[in-house]
Amino acid sequence: MHTILKSNTKEVIIGIDRPFVIIGEKINPTGHKKLAAALTEGNFDYIRQLVERQVAWGADVLDINVGVPGLDEVAMIPKVVELVASLTDAPICLDSGNPEVLAAGLAAAPGKPLVNSVSGEEKRLEAVLPIVRERGAAVIGLTMDDQGIPKTAEERLAVAEKILERAARIGIPAEDVIIDPLVLTVGSDSKAALVTLQTIELLRKNFGVNVNLGASNVSFGLPDRLTVNQAFLALAMQAGATCSITDPIKLGATIKAADLLLGRDDYAMRFIKYFRQAESLRAKESG
Amino acid sequence: MHTILKSNTKEVIIGIDRPFVIIGEKINPTGHKKLAAALTEGNFDYIRQLVERQVAWGADVLDINVGVPGLDEVAMIPKVVELVASLTDAPICLDSGNPEVLAAGLAAAPGKPLVNSVSGEEKRLEAVLPIVRERGAAVIGLTMDDQGIPKTAEERLAVAEKILERAARIGIPAEDVIIDPLVLTVGSDSKAALVTLQTIELLRKNFGVNVNLGASNVSFGLPDRLTVNQAFLALAMQAGATCSITDPIKLGATIKAADLLLGRDDYAMRFIKYFRQAESLRAKESG
Repeated sequence: MHTILKSNTKEVIIGIDRPFVIIGEKINPTGHKKLAAALTEGNFDYIRQLVERQVAWGADVLDINVGVPGLDEVAMIPKVVELVASLTDAPICLDSGNPEVLAAGLAAAPGKPLVNSVSGEEKRLEAVLPIVRERGAAVIGLTMDDQGIPKTAEERLAVAEKILERAARIGIPAEDVIIDPLVLTVGSDSKAALVTLQTIELLRKNFGVNVNLGASNVSFGLPDRLTVNQAFLALAMQAGATCSITDPIKLGATIKAADLLLGRDDYAMRFIKYFRQAESLRAKESG
Repeated sequence: MHTILKSNTKEVIIGIDRPFVIIGEKINPTGHKKLAAALTEGNFDYIRQLVERQVAWGADVLDINVGVPGLDEVAMIPKVVELVASLTDAPICLDSGNPEVLAAGLAAAPGKPLVNSVSGEEKRLEAVLPIVRERGAAVIGLTMDDQGIPKTAEERLAVAEKILERAARIGIPAEDVIIDPLVLTVGSDSKAALVTLQTIELLRKNFGVNVNLGASNVSFGLPDRLTVNQAFLALAMQAGATCSITDPIKLGATIKAADLLLGRDDYAMRFIKYFRQAESLRAKESG
């Protein structure tokens, strides 16, 4: 099953037989004061840097979140979307909990964007799926519902099934729904990552859908988070995840290595190309 | 199934329900000129450093190889075994292709050592299994035979079965045979790692035996080998590998992270302890 995202000029295909897709996470002011200030001040130079740096480091798609308290997000998101679309041919992922912000972003986005996100919560299903359908976009479905995040893989699978059914009912095909099985921190629950990995395996086996992962929650509260996040991404890719909203600068090399190890990179050509590119970027950024 | 190795004072248990076991690889002069010279000169100070550093960085067992061209290995290995046993309570893994060297090492080693290795080759089965049996040791069985290293996971499984049968026939139980599925470099064959991962899964499913991995071959000839080796170890652990002959300094953190993610480290206590220990070692080694 292939999920196809598009800008005006480029197509990105997400699928288990394809290279893993990196959705750059850094245009998100949550816990990022400099970006929050830039958005509030309308300083687009800094956003431009974030776009260019992520694309240079291997982001295939760019996530855009403009959630700053007090900011008019509905007015802001089209501006940022247009800026990003003017700088890169990477497709766009619109990231908001507010359906009006998503709608405003969808109206401005070129090609076929991704919406982040819907969940099994009734209100979100009702508010988000119709605007996804109307725009012909794709959507990320989080495996949580009005009762919260289920503890077991089987229950998360059931939430995914509900989202897929509700999407199908209004005409969104399964290939345009990417399921995110969610992950809690292993610091407080030693089985947290296992449940997510099992959910990924069940999703692949039962529905064959694409699976997204937000890879950094897993290490919350722990030291040496990068090592944990790297190992988790490799494990999730083996289980069947096909894309991640993540930091290409920190995790790009691990993702290319796992693609190589999982047999998706003949003669290691993409791995070696990425290494050379990263080496030259490191030289430029430090020089 | 548990493989139990022993020194005079310590037991190390290898099993899928236990923390992954690190067999320190650094007492091996292959491609390591300084150690080759130290062995030739009988300079045991450098070997002492290698022992202490590996144990400090988390080696549970120590591999000992004294293969230097021109050196009398049969005379040398008991001396190094005795030195290592005097410095650490980590059990010993005797590493040689020469059965006489293995026998000399086994005679000197305390507790219950590990022998590295036998294979499906007739000559090696006939020469190595009896001395393993006589000493009550455990042994690593490589999935290659007189025809070389098989291309498919099923064929490697068949070689493992042959080794297990031949071991059982002379009284070595399956829990004392650790199978090494071998890995070739992904640089020349993009399916090389996949075949090894599939072999690990088949070994776990069919025989439930412990599985060892030499993790660094996989990246031979590639740049950024550490990233590839880290990702591969995580994938192999998920597939069911239970120990690795590897470098604890480079790969210890990834192994502890994968143990944590695979649900084998309640409250991340071992991961956090390892991080603190590594931090203090780094400070000491750089200061």
